[in-house]
Amino acid sequence: MDKQVVGILGGGQLGRMFIEAANRMNVTVRVLDPTSQSPAKQLSSFAKHIDEPFTSSTAIQELATGCDVLTVEIEHVNCDELEKIEQQGLALVRPSSSTIRMIQDKFLQKEYLARHDLPLPEYTRCDTLDEAKRAGKAFGFPFVLKSRLGAYDGRGNYVVKSEADVETGFKLLGGKMQYAEKFVPFVKELAVMVVRRPGGEVATYPVVETIQRDNICELVYAPAQIDGQVRKVAMKVATDAVSCLPDGSVGIFGVEMFLHEDGHTVLVNEIAPRPHNSGHYTIEACNTSQYENHLRAVLDMPLGDTNLKVPAAAMINVLGGTDGYSSVLEPCLASLEVPGATVHLYGKTEAKAGRKMGHITVVADCFLQLRRRVDLIAGRLANASDEERDRLQYRSSAVPSTDGSVSDVEKKDVSEMAPLVGIIMGSDSDLPTMRPAAQILEQFGVPFELTIVSAHRTPDRMFEYARSAHKRGLKAIIAGAGGAAHLPGMVAALTPLPVIGVPVKGRCLDGVDSLHSIVQMPRGVPVATVAINNSDNAALLAVRIIGASCPSYLQAMEQYMDDMRTGVEKKIERLSIAGWKDY
Amino acid sequence: MDKQVVGILGGGQLGRMFIEAANRMNVTVRVLDPTSQSPAKQLSSFAKHIDEPFTSSTAIQELATGCDVLTVEIEHVNCDELEKIEQQGLALVRPSSSTIRMIQDKFLQKEYLARHDLPLPEYTRCDTLDEAKRAGKAFGFPFVLKSRLGAYDGRGNYVVKSEADVETGFKLLGGKMQYAEKFVPFVKELAVMVVRRPGGEVATYPVVETIQRDNICELVYAPAQIDGQVRKVAMKVATDAVSCLPDGSVGIFGVEMFLHEDGHTVLVNEIAPRPHNSGHYTIEACNTSQYENHLRAVLDMPLGDTNLKVPAAAMINVLGGTDGYSSVLEPCLASLEVPGATVHLYGKTEAKAGRKMGHITVVADCFLQLRRRVDLIAGRLANASDEERDRLQYRSSAVPSTDGSVSDVEKKDVSEMAPLVGIIMGSDSDLPTMRPAAQILEQFGVPFELTIVSAHRTPDRMFEYARSAHKRGLKAIIAGAGGAAHLPGMVAALTPLPVIGVPVKGRCLDGVDSLHSIVQMPRGVPVATVAINNSDNAALLAVRIIGASCPSYLQAMEQYMDDMRTGVEKKIERLSIAGWKDY
Repeated sequence: MDKQVVGILGGGQLGRMFIEAANRMNVTVRVLDPTSQSPAKQLSSFAKHIDEPFTSSTAIQELATGCDVLTVEIEHVNCDELEKIEQQGLALVRPSSSTIRMIQDKFLQKEYLARHDLPLPEYTRCDTLDEAKRAGKAFGFPFVLKSRLGAYDGRGNYVVKSEADVETGFKLLGGKMQYAEKFVPFVKELAVMVVRRPGGEVATYPVVETIQRDNICELVYAPAQIDGQVRKVAMKVATDAVSCLPDGSVGIFGVEMFLHEDGHTVLVNEIAPRPHNSGHYTIEACNTSQYENHLRAVLDMPLGDTNLKVPAAAMINVLGGTDGYSSVLEPCLASLEVPGATVHLYGKTEAKAGRKMGHITVVADCFLQLRRRVDLIAGRLANASDEERDRLQYRSSAVPSTDGSVSDVEKKDVSEMAPLVGIIMGSDSDLPTMRPAAQILEQFGVPFELTIVSAHRTPDRMFEYARSAHKRGLKAIIAGAGGAAHLPGMVAALTPLPVIGVPVKGRCLDGVDSLHSIVQMPRGVPVATVAINNSDNAALLAVRIIGASCPSYLQAMEQYMDDMRTGVEKKIERLSIAGWKDY
Repeated sequence: MDKQVVGILGGGQLGRMFIEAANRMNVTVRVLDPTSQSPAKQLSSFAKHIDEPFTSSTAIQELATGCDVLTVEIEHVNCDELEKIEQQGLALVRPSSSTIRMIQDKFLQKEYLARHDLPLPEYTRCDTLDEAKRAGKAFGFPFVLKSRLGAYDGRGNYVVKSEADVETGFKLLGGKMQYAEKFVPFVKELAVMVVRRPGGEVATYPVVETIQRDNICELVYAPAQIDGQVRKVAMKVATDAVSCLPDGSVGIFGVEMFLHEDGHTVLVNEIAPRPHNSGHYTIEACNTSQYENHLRAVLDMPLGDTNLKVPAAAMINVLGGTDGYSSVLEPCLASLEVPGATVHLYGKTEAKAGRKMGHITVVADCFLQLRRRVDLIAGRLANASDEERDRLQYRSSAVPSTDGSVSDVEKKDVSEMAPLVGIIMGSDSDLPTMRPAAQILEQFGVPFELTIVSAHRTPDRMFEYARSAHKRGLKAIIAGAGGAAHLPGMVAALTPLPVIGVPVKGRCLDGVDSLHSIVQMPRGVPVATVAINNSDNAALLAVRIIGASCPSYLQAMEQYMDDMRTGVEKKIERLSIAGWKDY
């Protein structure tokens, strides 16, 4: 596709998946890596790879000589040498040496982001033990000591639990070049990939949720199951963080963030100037993968669309265990039987404990189905103890239900998923009428939110609620109202989503007033009206609406209808046995 | 993932994409191909490839010696040698030599399928010119003469137009080993990939529609835009065709079929015992690609899920043109700017005219969006004349609308798409009331069907219609009814889809009878009821329902609501200028 040759420093799994993308577009990539049969080199037969450390000056010079662009799959590279390449004009370096240098040093990175007003946890420089002690006093305990250089996958971090613990930590991290960070009480870790083209144009991927174990990313869920407004904030923070980087910051960047326990504050943790573990899911789940977009960026081609092409995706890291390769193969073999699962093995021969050997991507038609599929794989993870398995958030039950019904454990978990349906009512006096809707949705495993929105008493709130509903990820709104019953129709006038109206029976007119107020909408704005006081049917309609495009819920509805039939059949039998007199 | 080594005969693009899948699972594939840097070999650095013709006996022996399983990417291989390998037990051959041999000879293939009662066009053996002439008399003109051996991409086929033409055709095809086929008046060409594991378990991919130019597949649409019942028939025919093959028929098979102009008869054209051009789309669009499933099958691993993971996908072949490589690059470069498009270039250096150089896959959230995206790429195909472009079926307009509105040309084309909404009514007397629903759906580019279904006069038809609706691909049903108005509720009791009820005003009671009959459904079975006689709103609700899961239609609804606002604003202005007396 392009005559330019790309050179990459590092030939591990990130380079391997980068080459997979380059192969598709017929772009030649040369790899510099000390291992002769490194994961990346295995996928590219005829490019002139170099078997030298990616820190070697002469090797970098040699690589640059045959390439138009150099890029990296790891940030711990020889920036001095890359800078020389830039100065000599031997090859373009993307991202530039100065960007990599600044990101390499996590303290400089913090300083840069702080200067550009990015939201960060409080931090301070610690060159000496005294400074570290002062940090402890200022931030309180626990706080985090971090190495400025060479840190990744949690290596180079130390959580200081008490004043007595400061010295241990400071020495453990090498006794110099550190900084301290105030502990962030976070509820979730979020990550966003952002790709940037020469000239500064950026494209931002969806917000994902990363679940870590022992500081290694274990599980990624896309999209993150958080409120749509918070997703928007996180996308903006990540976009700003990459946009503020100096000129020459070209390629893909992974932005790791904390979601504070206040539920809405998003803080930047750190940036990686390369493809990122939290972006593996993009290969199967997005229109253009992080790897292809990195390639497009460094070659200055138009950026590809970053949107999800499936409703939900997850990524499970496959790590080496203490029993060698069998702990790697077990989840992979399990995943062969799980629909929507794709195995990626990196071609590493030695399965050291904790080493990233591969990953499994799972896609699904909804988050509930995704969770069940992840459970099927994660439930079989060889090395996981029961406790460790519990750490796999969203885990519902050891044996996920196969009949489509939602288990009690799952019902609880549905409340942790981003809502698909909003149930609103004008007053808490409507709650007894609307509660069955909530029960039905819970029964079907449809995540929902329930709140009071009054057309007449909180018109501003109604506007805000209805206007933002589809942006927050809702797919349908159920609105209950009595009497003049304006809520459903007004909400329908403000949202492009289907609105289901439940006429609530008042003290007079038997609910016919509400029914007519809700159903007799003018041409242009429909409300899907159900029977008076029948919020069950409103919820069942919402399930049918979601099920129209989501086989999981469609099947659940078929099952529900079948159960209704069986229920009546039992009554028929009872009636026939008891007779009509004694029934 | 697996210690077994796979050897493949042929190292072109099919082998290349097979190796891409194998690399992901860390399975070693050795390639036998005369070209040393053939497309497949480029992607696998350290396997011991062989640079010999894939017909060479010694080379096949050499390949088998180092492999556990042999497979093919082309059926024109040396079956005698493969049979020897099987007899010697040197390696497993999948699919087996006897399967390949039978499929190689298209006449034997036909005979085999006929013996197993597969639906086929009429055919007869022609070893001599006399037999060919007799075939012409029996079948009428035009009929098709076909070479039994070595045919692919239309080579080896000759359409005989008249009696005088028989001899020309017979000689052109080599004067021997032919058969004649009665011309099938088909409306579409369909294809289905089927993968088969040792033991006979099969998994079947969706039905796609292939559009040929000069006998080369140019464009593939998935799923085929045909009635759901016909899709079911085509899947069954393809599944039967692969299931009836002899034991040892292991791997992926492409089944090409004709859809007869009667609209429901499906005839098998031919089977390819390998990954197939019409299955390229599965890489981006299905849960497991044809390549990975071929690998799983030949290694006797569990088969992967064959379902689409996106609503719609297309594949555009990129062929070499008379101007060399620029005709290859032009559509590829165009596709970089099209969301959902992925370029595959096969690493072939020489772009001979008509040579398959690569392909572009496009995915989309609905068929309308897919068509627009395909247009954006195909509209720029370098070598296409206007006439040739018109051959790209489903092509709407040279410049597809970007504002979300549906052009007049597109409205026509929507009628060629598989319906998403069914509009039904109890009697043709309801048509004036229901017509606005059809107009709204047309305006939004939502494919629909409209027919009469009466609960009271055609109860069987109602059952059949409602029960099959979701299986045929509908996402919502709009039912209009007056008076006792049972249709919407009865349909809702028979389908898991959302049913929208339009109360039709009768001669008395002002439509309140219909309204109450439709809206007051019992708990368990909802009908989304709209205002009396307001079928516009029923259609708008259907658009909202589809839009809840499909951004294209959601945006169109937002646009529609904005247009309503603008419409009123114009009236406000006119009223303010004219004053209330003269307005």
